[in-house]
Amino acid sequence: MPIEAREIVLAARPAGWPSESDFRIESRTLADPTDGEIAIEVTHLSVDPYMRSRMRDAASYAAPVQLGEKMTGAGVGRVFASRSPRFQPGDWVQGVTGWCSHLVTEARGFRKLDPSASPGSTALGVPGMTGLTAYFGLLDVGKPKSGETVLISGAAGAVGSVAGQIARIQGCRTVGIAGSDEKVAWLVEELGFGAAFNYKTTADYRARISELCPNGVDIYFDNVGGEITDAVFPLLNVHARMPVCGQISQYNNEEQEMGPRLLWYLITKRARVEGFLVTDYAERFREALAQLTGWYREGRLVHREEIEHGLENTPRAFLEMMRGRNTGKMIVKVAD
Amino acid sequence: MPIEAREIVLAARPAGWPSESDFRIESRTLADPTDGEIAIEVTHLSVDPYMRSRMRDAASYAAPVQLGEKMTGAGVGRVFASRSPRFQPGDWVQGVTGWCSHLVTEARGFRKLDPSASPGSTALGVPGMTGLTAYFGLLDVGKPKSGETVLISGAAGAVGSVAGQIARIQGCRTVGIAGSDEKVAWLVEELGFGAAFNYKTTADYRARISELCPNGVDIYFDNVGGEITDAVFPLLNVHARMPVCGQISQYNNEEQEMGPRLLWYLITKRARVEGFLVTDYAERFREALAQLTGWYREGRLVHREEIEHGLENTPRAFLEMMRGRNTGKMIVKVAD
Repeated sequence: MPIEAREIVLAARPAGWPSESDFRIESRTLADPTDGEIAIEVTHLSVDPYMRSRMRDAASYAAPVQLGEKMTGAGVGRVFASRSPRFQPGDWVQGVTGWCSHLVTEARGFRKLDPSASPGSTALGVPGMTGLTAYFGLLDVGKPKSGETVLISGAAGAVGSVAGQIARIQGCRTVGIAGSDEKVAWLVEELGFGAAFNYKTTADYRARISELCPNGVDIYFDNVGGEITDAVFPLLNVHARMPVCGQISQYNNEEQEMGPRLLWYLITKRARVEGFLVTDYAERFREALAQLTGWYREGRLVHREEIEHGLENTPRAFLEMMRGRNTGKMIVKVAD
Repeated sequence: MPIEAREIVLAARPAGWPSESDFRIESRTLADPTDGEIAIEVTHLSVDPYMRSRMRDAASYAAPVQLGEKMTGAGVGRVFASRSPRFQPGDWVQGVTGWCSHLVTEARGFRKLDPSASPGSTALGVPGMTGLTAYFGLLDVGKPKSGETVLISGAAGAVGSVAGQIARIQGCRTVGIAGSDEKVAWLVEELGFGAAFNYKTTADYRARISELCPNGVDIYFDNVGGEITDAVFPLLNVHARMPVCGQISQYNNEEQEMGPRLLWYLITKRARVEGFLVTDYAERFREALAQLTGWYREGRLVHREEIEHGLENTPRAFLEMMRGRNTGKMIVKVAD
């Protein structure tokens, strides 16, 4: 019985900020799965900053999405047909589905979920790629020690909010930078950050960070780049670490943005700046998911979602996430 | 018998490039050594880029030199009076003497040299701070693996020329960036660099580096910063390392220089940029000096000096080193 799938495809390559007209919804008829394949009905999609870089016609760590091609991204769904011995119809799975209602795909790369453990959408958050990104970035790259000061930009976003909580669990003092007073209140009152501030109402980032980090910055977990990050360099402590997770302030630039040259600070502070990608840690996902799930069940990691409804609204959800509307993880609910 | 010492003191804080008028020579009568002190006749002084930052009235990793105070720096000399059980008159020593002909100082921090092993001045080069800086920066921060491509800026300078040779000894392909055709020839013909180029006659650094590093850059040992370093970021390989040793292109700036924001490359390449100071490795100097001295005696590490004569010419030697006159290590010979 052929299935009609709806897909969001890339319609145009944006110059600067993307808009809804850069995307288009299409229907297509899926073939039945062949050996090793499964058919999935998607229920939830994740929208994330890295997707902006896939819209560019430039090689990065992954190939760009082609014009007319389905947008890439992680999703959760239910298997409704399987030619893989690993999956049965009715199984919940998580993997790279792209922005669509249904798909037929190689089973390889998909992970089975336990629907009794938590709602399917959380597999995109704390015990999913988001949590894994925070986990490896903070613990493996940042190497926090109890008592250190950990500063996080994009702190109310999906990854930042988890990274800050993991730092808190490690016994660090956490300071968050976010884009609204509501986000700041959430960080301090619900996630246990030691302090936070709203950069949109702050004129002098450096002075404010210095005030909230009186012992300097031992780890700066960077999601944003740009002027906020510039302000941190002079405040780094000796042997500070800077895991670079994202640079969202730069993703819509058409021209190379200029900023102060800051490498000198790395010498005087013997500091380390290091980028990372969660996909490099695939061999350790099982260990990390067990730890993240444990913290989540114990209530030590708070997960919050901002939910948009309907596949057709995925571009809007993506754009609003890029503008910082979400507190916590931005999710699109495609089906029940 | 009181000794008249000549000293070069900081006479003015330079704005931008320093000049000889920023220094002044003075005489003063030294007191006899008291308990734990030694009196040294200086024979050789090292002039190094870091000294420029000590001329600023700004806290860095070390206190600035005050106006009217003796310029800081490493030197070699002969003990002529001692109240320390560790040293006898006639011993050769190396340590922080400052720019002077004679000094009385605490013996702590000085190291005895074996004059039969090599001329005293080499203790400022390969088997001295210069060699140690290259050793720990390349091996500990850079972590080279055989077959990798190691790119070095300031490659014909004191530290760069040693770092490149150590990389070669580790089985890496070494590519140098230097400021004259003579330096380039020296790197390739005498030090065994795989390739090198003269940045002063190169319009497009990125294209030239790309041509000489067809497999990309695994380690970039940075002594210079600025536009040369900008050009390297897009050419870094996955998991590349960038030990930041110096930023000589920036040291005479009065205004913060601007450059492209480059942290994004660290994410896509999962690359690491890390500053270091040799003084952090003091506990391992003995091990490293043994290794460096071994390589030097075996002829695997070539040492070259550019010698200026006379204490009064130390400022000029320093300024010419900053302008890149030296190939190898710039030394001032103060006495025989």
